[in-house]
Amino acid sequence: MSRSPHPLVEIHRGPLAESVHAGHAVICDDTGAVHQAWGDPDAVVLPRSSAKMIQALPLVASGAADAFGIDPRRLALACASHQGAPIHVDAVNAWLAELGLDDDALRCGAQGTRDPDLKLAMIRAGESPCQVHNNCSGKHAGFLTLTKHLGAGPEYVEPDHPVQRACLEAFETVTDEVSPGFGIDGCSAPNFAGSMTGMARAMAWFATAHTRDDALSKAAARLVEAMIAHPEMVAGEGRACTRLMRAAREPVALKTGAEGFFIAILPQRGLGVALKITDGATRAAECTIAAILVRLGVLNAADPEVKAFLNPEIRNWRGLLTGEIRPSTDLLKLA
Amino acid sequence: MSRSPHPLVEIHRGPLAESVHAGHAVICDDTGAVHQAWGDPDAVVLPRSSAKMIQALPLVASGAADAFGIDPRRLALACASHQGAPIHVDAVNAWLAELGLDDDALRCGAQGTRDPDLKLAMIRAGESPCQVHNNCSGKHAGFLTLTKHLGAGPEYVEPDHPVQRACLEAFETVTDEVSPGFGIDGCSAPNFAGSMTGMARAMAWFATAHTRDDALSKAAARLVEAMIAHPEMVAGEGRACTRLMRAAREPVALKTGAEGFFIAILPQRGLGVALKITDGATRAAECTIAAILVRLGVLNAADPEVKAFLNPEIRNWRGLLTGEIRPSTDLLKLA
Repeated sequence: MSRSPHPLVEIHRGPLAESVHAGHAVICDDTGAVHQAWGDPDAVVLPRSSAKMIQALPLVASGAADAFGIDPRRLALACASHQGAPIHVDAVNAWLAELGLDDDALRCGAQGTRDPDLKLAMIRAGESPCQVHNNCSGKHAGFLTLTKHLGAGPEYVEPDHPVQRACLEAFETVTDEVSPGFGIDGCSAPNFAGSMTGMARAMAWFATAHTRDDALSKAAARLVEAMIAHPEMVAGEGRACTRLMRAAREPVALKTGAEGFFIAILPQRGLGVALKITDGATRAAECTIAAILVRLGVLNAADPEVKAFLNPEIRNWRGLLTGEIRPSTDLLKLA
Repeated sequence: MSRSPHPLVEIHRGPLAESVHAGHAVICDDTGAVHQAWGDPDAVVLPRSSAKMIQALPLVASGAADAFGIDPRRLALACASHQGAPIHVDAVNAWLAELGLDDDALRCGAQGTRDPDLKLAMIRAGESPCQVHNNCSGKHAGFLTLTKHLGAGPEYVEPDHPVQRACLEAFETVTDEVSPGFGIDGCSAPNFAGSMTGMARAMAWFATAHTRDDALSKAAARLVEAMIAHPEMVAGEGRACTRLMRAAREPVALKTGAEGFFIAILPQRGLGVALKITDGATRAAECTIAAILVRLGVLNAADPEVKAFLNPEIRNWRGLLTGEIRPSTDLLKLA
């Protein structure tokens, strides 16, 4: 039986909860056992960029990453929604150059950088965004590496391309489900649908990968380790994934996705978390992942870096405090 | 009895309704009789910028607008969330100059222009945004005009300032309710809370204002006429209010508000519409107002200008069609 989305986040202004966000969230172990859930654990969702570490699995498990000497910093970038800051753009350009390729080989499309300084500098210099500035360009550099390793054709985002077939196989393996279909993502790659529990189970499978010896698990453990070692590559300065990974009391991998998705991989606990804000709001997904990690004791609610997402102030154009974002009370209270 | 928010808008991608927006919507006449409602007509909400024509009532009803020769174009600007394009900025600057004031008299705070060309030009010229670029600067020029007319002090956004006390009185008159409180808006003015039905009733009161002879109704009729005559001043090129007012088969005044609010004033029918997307999403508020106006026969669903908000395509960074926004089926079907 499907359950309604659960109220997760309130936007307060003056005397009112002006807006409210609801959604689904699941905390799961790698057997697929649900430890805690809000909303509908069976809801079918598109995980969007929260699935990038799954899409990077074939790159490592195939041997392509080792064949091309892909270091952990680049593995983190393969799992990233980076903000197109110079450290990200330079790293992807260097990666492409080592493959004997350039921006034209990418199929993610041009997207403006979200790095404020670089954005202003490019506007002042009259420069247009390139594909390498796209938040998914690291994932696509990984796709191109696997494409070259497999000797496959250049249209690597086509659903029947060997790279995407490998991604689907990895997705169904780690979610332990048959995917009911896919949507085309912002970066033109297929994004496979799964259930909330399937995604949380997949994240728990990543969390326990270091305890297993099979090739796919070993690949997953390397990706988790790379994300944890290089939080600045996974998103960028100022961004939720980067700041909350740095603020955590224990090693965790966090990853946002478009339309209100967020996941957490908790290797010390063997747990995975997946959440989807039904209306797609990023502000609510960031608040909810912070609240769940506070609830679990992974984040400290008193840390200003945590409060910036858990309970941020809303200020207006004159800098006056006009409201705040709050997690719902039953999200924080212990079970 | 309060009712849950009603599903109003779906965001489709591939095989899935990836995200869903719910909310409250009320169609009402000026007696407060609800002709149609979705969600909870008694929900208490902040109408944000959808209340600007109410906040402009004291400017006209007091005689200040006539004393200072405020023409209909400026009255439309007083009701506007403009995008800070040159036509808006120049008009507000000229208005302030005629009052013997300049940007420093405003209390709305500096906000970057949302006009794409002006934005790039200002970045290239190294210019910072002024308060006049703030989307509310026309409303504030109106507040300053009334302040001067009343001989009141310069801090016109304080809740106990005569201008704001007049706004509260107007709000309670037209909603026919006692406001339960207020929040501070993005532009630092108080934003008074009311019920969904109160706001829809207020919009119906504006819609029938031309049939009455009292000073407040005559002021309201002039504001409605000004908004309908100058849709480009109410928002700007490319924006929903401007485009949908131009696309309407009959004269209507439309006004968006932050956090998913939208209203419609329908003078030929004597009806008002108010809607609030519970999660605050603008994309859903625009879709819902278009759907309700299609349902009523005010907009033509086949008009590309209407479809741009009723059922817009979602395209990715390569320009590929990846999804669409759709109103819920029971929003469009006839009662």
